[in-house]
Amino acid sequence: MYKAPVEEIAFTLKHVAGLAPALDGGYLGDLTDDLVDAILAEAGRFASEEIAPLGAIGDIEGARFADGAVKMPDGWPALYKAWAEGGWNSLTASPDFGGQGLPHMLHVAALEMWNSGSMAFAIGPTLTIGAIEALTAHGSDHLKNTYLPKMVSGEWMGSMNLTEPHAGSDLGVMKTRAERRDDGTYRLFGQKIFITYGEHDFTDNIVHLVLARLPDAPAGTRGISLFLVPKFLVNEDGSLGPRNDAYCHSIEHKLGIHGSPTCTMIYGDGRFGEEPGAIGWLVGEENRGLACMFTMMNNARLAVGMQGVAIAEAATQKAIAYAKERTQGKAPGWQGSGMSPIIEHPDVARMLLTMKVLTQGARAITYACAHAVDMAHGEDARHWAERASLLTPVAKSFATDAGVDVASLGIQVHGGMGFIEETGAARLYRDARIAPIYEGTNGIQAIDLVTRKLPLSEGNHIRGFIAELRDIAAKAAASNMPALGETGERLTASIADLEIATEWLLAAVSEGRQVEALAGATPYQRLFGLVLTGAFLAKGALADGGDGRNEERAALCRFAAENVIGETAALRERVIGGAPSLAAARAVLG
Amino acid sequence: MYKAPVEEIAFTLKHVAGLAPALDGGYLGDLTDDLVDAILAEAGRFASEEIAPLGAIGDIEGARFADGAVKMPDGWPALYKAWAEGGWNSLTASPDFGGQGLPHMLHVAALEMWNSGSMAFAIGPTLTIGAIEALTAHGSDHLKNTYLPKMVSGEWMGSMNLTEPHAGSDLGVMKTRAERRDDGTYRLFGQKIFITYGEHDFTDNIVHLVLARLPDAPAGTRGISLFLVPKFLVNEDGSLGPRNDAYCHSIEHKLGIHGSPTCTMIYGDGRFGEEPGAIGWLVGEENRGLACMFTMMNNARLAVGMQGVAIAEAATQKAIAYAKERTQGKAPGWQGSGMSPIIEHPDVARMLLTMKVLTQGARAITYACAHAVDMAHGEDARHWAERASLLTPVAKSFATDAGVDVASLGIQVHGGMGFIEETGAARLYRDARIAPIYEGTNGIQAIDLVTRKLPLSEGNHIRGFIAELRDIAAKAAASNMPALGETGERLTASIADLEIATEWLLAAVSEGRQVEALAGATPYQRLFGLVLTGAFLAKGALADGGDGRNEERAALCRFAAENVIGETAALRERVIGGAPSLAAARAVLG
Repeated sequence: MYKAPVEEIAFTLKHVAGLAPALDGGYLGDLTDDLVDAILAEAGRFASEEIAPLGAIGDIEGARFADGAVKMPDGWPALYKAWAEGGWNSLTASPDFGGQGLPHMLHVAALEMWNSGSMAFAIGPTLTIGAIEALTAHGSDHLKNTYLPKMVSGEWMGSMNLTEPHAGSDLGVMKTRAERRDDGTYRLFGQKIFITYGEHDFTDNIVHLVLARLPDAPAGTRGISLFLVPKFLVNEDGSLGPRNDAYCHSIEHKLGIHGSPTCTMIYGDGRFGEEPGAIGWLVGEENRGLACMFTMMNNARLAVGMQGVAIAEAATQKAIAYAKERTQGKAPGWQGSGMSPIIEHPDVARMLLTMKVLTQGARAITYACAHAVDMAHGEDARHWAERASLLTPVAKSFATDAGVDVASLGIQVHGGMGFIEETGAARLYRDARIAPIYEGTNGIQAIDLVTRKLPLSEGNHIRGFIAELRDIAAKAAASNMPALGETGERLTASIADLEIATEWLLAAVSEGRQVEALAGATPYQRLFGLVLTGAFLAKGALADGGDGRNEERAALCRFAAENVIGETAALRERVIGGAPSLAAARAVLG
Repeated sequence: MYKAPVEEIAFTLKHVAGLAPALDGGYLGDLTDDLVDAILAEAGRFASEEIAPLGAIGDIEGARFADGAVKMPDGWPALYKAWAEGGWNSLTASPDFGGQGLPHMLHVAALEMWNSGSMAFAIGPTLTIGAIEALTAHGSDHLKNTYLPKMVSGEWMGSMNLTEPHAGSDLGVMKTRAERRDDGTYRLFGQKIFITYGEHDFTDNIVHLVLARLPDAPAGTRGISLFLVPKFLVNEDGSLGPRNDAYCHSIEHKLGIHGSPTCTMIYGDGRFGEEPGAIGWLVGEENRGLACMFTMMNNARLAVGMQGVAIAEAATQKAIAYAKERTQGKAPGWQGSGMSPIIEHPDVARMLLTMKVLTQGARAITYACAHAVDMAHGEDARHWAERASLLTPVAKSFATDAGVDVASLGIQVHGGMGFIEETGAARLYRDARIAPIYEGTNGIQAIDLVTRKLPLSEGNHIRGFIAELRDIAAKAAASNMPALGETGERLTASIADLEIATEWLLAAVSEGRQVEALAGATPYQRLFGLVLTGAFLAKGALADGGDGRNEERAALCRFAAENVIGETAALRERVIGGAPSLAAARAVLG
């Protein structure tokens, strides 16, 4: 069973991702090191003891749809209630509406642990927190006062409604329409698909945030507005009024995250209310809905990245436990009697260490991204906002790919038992597979990284970041830690691969060689993630964490440098030379 | 829906894997090119039109267990009957018992297509064919005459019983026991797990081949005997007699291949018959059971490799079809009106081409292995037997890893739709995951490759094979095909990586540096597969297939050389330098 790795998480937050210097520098208000530890410990306890034990039943029963209602898995409504009562919904929310106003770093660390417990459970609250964020930034005072206190307390949940059948990534072709009414409200008509937690029995009300188009809106993404559409209308006194004309038509039968209801939502077909039309309120300005969504898009992408880390951590723990218990054959050099635990076989150890490296690398990248989000509210805001922007696609893609790869290795370590659902390794493999897709596929992250993030500050932001990475590699090379092996040289070489690929892409983008740049976007994104993995592991090995585990961290870092990140040279070649053969082979696909 | 790629399969068999020269050289009896084409066309038709349409229902309903019986998915018993009546069960079987005695190459090509249609369906007949093979090679005349005609005709199926709860890969610790009886029969007692098609309603009788230990048997794998244990005893006249004391206790709830019943089998607990004990007949000699199993182990491993190819092909077809139909955004350079089909986005094309390369590479490797199996019956038998031995672990592991990777990419191409079960991409991802595990995990294949296969003929067999590969690379470099791009140089470099890694491993194994050799076994196996992929694609591009598709094949080959196989350098480094950091990091795992 999953046990939250609170110490490793605290170490990574503080000594790799930047929390310790931020605390020391007073950048995070009156947050103290002790409070950080206490929050992490309690979030971890909740994940390990409350969520994780209900993960399997959520998968087996799934969310069940009947007569327009969704029945959540047994025990989950009570779990949600305990979670909300624990104050977890309000961690980062504004104190003006009952929130605790804590840094984003703590939120992502908690998210990791909750998702390790059950990704299908954690995704619901995550989306509510996103809705709170959008409403806080863009809602009118009336909307904020009416909805935010109950959303922050967790009494009501939220949902995000973007996707339509013909419009997944391309929101510009959206068809859901909104009509103005004289009283300042709107009526919405349309269908949305893939709406996570669009309907459930956790809360009495659900606050849908819905993108739609006004009749006179300009075409494309500049003609989209954001609306708040509650499942039940809210009376003046805050009590629930009549049912709004918005409902769940059906839910999807999915590969994984079975406990998370994925809803087709119908707005305004007249099933409820006196006349057809779901009653909605504008959030932000007309035709500026996409900007409102972008406020939270980066954080949502990072939240999905946390799911990747979470699955990877859970799969690694499970595989290590199994490999220590299961005996089979005799490993070379095995001195014990009888068969050796399979962890003694070099190939099994290789799989487990690769899992650990990818998990820890993904964790460090995502936490560093959250750190940049936090720092972007203080001095040097532009620098940190750019850092957050740059790291978001890498964090989302690398971590979610790691989730899939590590879960797959986890099954392999289990052998035949991994293919049996009762073992639980298969659930992680199934759940993991959505994360590289939603909130923008990893391919779209790569396009974002190459065409919008690298050019920030004319390429000087990424150059400055690479200089920071070189500094880490130099420190590793200059260190007197034999345990680091060839880390310094290997990391230096990989950073050079990143630098060459970066300059090539910057030139391609600025010269308008779009096809070439995009052909190399995914290999570049992978290259970036591998380099960051090596660099952050080295930073951790060199850090003074005060826990006496530097040698152990150095050993894992060395394994990463000598056995995991060596693909950077091949990836660099693909970035700068892969496009012509890709274009030439396109005809093969017919 | 899957359509068997009969032409590509025929081309690969003939012009890449060696069937054309074997036919020309008269090595395959009176088999003709036309007959090959006719068999492939009909096997493909059966796969596309009969099996594939029943694949989804097999997944949804699965095999269902109740009261000791297994009910197969709706329509499957009739499908099996049609398959057996088509003569497909008898393709490679001996004409002495009603078989057609055709080469193994045709069998694996047909296996690929049937598994693309439904892996859960095809695995049952595959195991029966394995049982036929073992019985043909080692059974007494009495056993052969009693069982083989009905097994070859498909009237009865077979099953292979090796695994026990505590003994997966390590058969030496097996506990099922067999007692001698005065009449020459034996009584078996024990439990077997993970028995594929151990019980079902396809046939009236099931012929179980069971490994067990005699009371006076030596310890370990030298004390294991093979027994034939029919579900129903067979009367003198061939009719079915009383039920034997062997039954299915339960079936597993698995990640994939739901239509394939994975049974826990109980032998000899007294549920059936007058006294406890499942009545069995010895196959081969006492205590030589493992040797009997090894006869068919290589072919079984190759058959699992075919499942990898099959899943990869099905996933690639599905993803290409979807990417041509689904529109989203505007790809750079898109001239059409509205949104472009996603296949026009460079990153999607990259995924699809990578899928094609891995599929075609895996196909060529597995077919080349089957060719070696066929040739091992003729002159130069030792050479070809060694080639088959060498290629088997690479074929099994590379193809099954490709199955998983390609199925995962297939989901990614589908975006959110890939996560919805109705689409079918998810089923391939689930089904694929068992293939790297069963018939010896891919890690065990790597151990076999490095410690037993490389040293064949003191390393001279692998050296000779590498020389053949160098010859292909030289031809590519010397060719006048601009479409091959840098194939010659890249392939030459990758072959050099293989050569260096091979020599290092040969030295490590011969010097007894077992831990070091095993630490690099999996990276070596991957390196080998990537080099073979590049080399076989180049061989195909250079071949005179008479179909005018050389330019197309060259373009795919170039994409492979410049965008897929570049990891060989990093893999070489891992083989020859990865062991120390792996050993040092072992402590991290606790």
